[in-house]
Amino acid sequence: MSERTENEIKARVVLQQCLHAQLQVKPPDGENQAEWVEINRGMVIYICFFKGAAEDLIPKMVNTLLNMKLCETEAGKLTSVLQLPGSVLIVPQATLGGKPKGKGMQYHGNIGKDEGLKLYESFVSHCQSELSACTNSDPHTELKHGTYGNRQVLTLDTNGPYTHLMEF
Amino acid sequence: MSERTENEIKARVVLQQCLHAQLQVKPPDGENQAEWVEINRGMVIYICFFKGAAEDLIPKMVNTLLNMKLCETEAGKLTSVLQLPGSVLIVPQATLGGKPKGKGMQYHGNIGKDEGLKLYESFVSHCQSELSACTNSDPHTELKHGTYGNRQVLTLDTNGPYTHLMEF
Repeated sequence: MSERTENEIKARVVLQQCLHAQLQVKPPDGENQAEWVEINRGMVIYICFFKGAAEDLIPKMVNTLLNMKLCETEAGKLTSVLQLPGSVLIVPQATLGGKPKGKGMQYHGNIGKDEGLKLYESFVSHCQSELSACTNSDPHTELKHGTYGNRQVLTLDTNGPYTHLMEF
Repeated sequence: MSERTENEIKARVVLQQCLHAQLQVKPPDGENQAEWVEINRGMVIYICFFKGAAEDLIPKMVNTLLNMKLCETEAGKLTSVLQLPGSVLIVPQATLGGKPKGKGMQYHGNIGKDEGLKLYESFVSHCQSELSACTNSDPHTELKHGTYGNRQVLTLDTNGPYTHLMEF
């Protein structure tokens, strides 16, 4: 990532480790209660795409993110979420594309909504494939994800979020 | 922030909005239970300093962060955490300085521990001053902060974290 200028960034990701996370995927509507997904131990991936991001970015991103050694084993050793094995919660987070202008944020660099949705769906689907293909997988590990474009009502329980930024 | 290269960044901040957040400030020790701080509605500031960061950066950073319109009023309008008025939880997060190398993260750009602690303490103290000076302040708003160098055991409850990245 060295010496890259901001306009060359196609995707921004914030990663946090969790013991438990719960995300609303459908808001309450009339008599219908809100719908939620949840994961236990694993990694939360907040993701935002910028203008110029394209499908060929996705496999590389997913491979990098799921294999980064950011998760802590019981013994305190760092390993990847695939090897832990842990669950993954994907949170679409367009606000990550914000650039300050005066006292507000502008999102002019963000990808358009339709294109962003396509890339988001591809990202989720590639994560699902990698998790399913992992020989180290465990029946307790899961992939869950938020609804693109919705408010991401989130609850997070951590043993240290160990927050990382990655840009692609 | 446009066109700045990564080596010119002196501090990285991730901001999340919360309804409630709880942070361990002292781990359990023998018979002594862990100590925690908590805030209700407000903003969580995850902060990391890079080599070259200096004291003159702090007042500008604090002023910018506390006045950015990232908080939502009951009516759904964006306002600053000072004007909300909301509470602030500061979380030292050296992992934000990570750069990927292979499948691991390296933190060579991070500031040294002693210098980092000094800047962190100054950051906390400037935030406290700005919150106290704000005429819009409210007896229910508070500033809480994590212990520099500790594991940041955190629990977060949001109505959408509305995650933003800011670099200085």
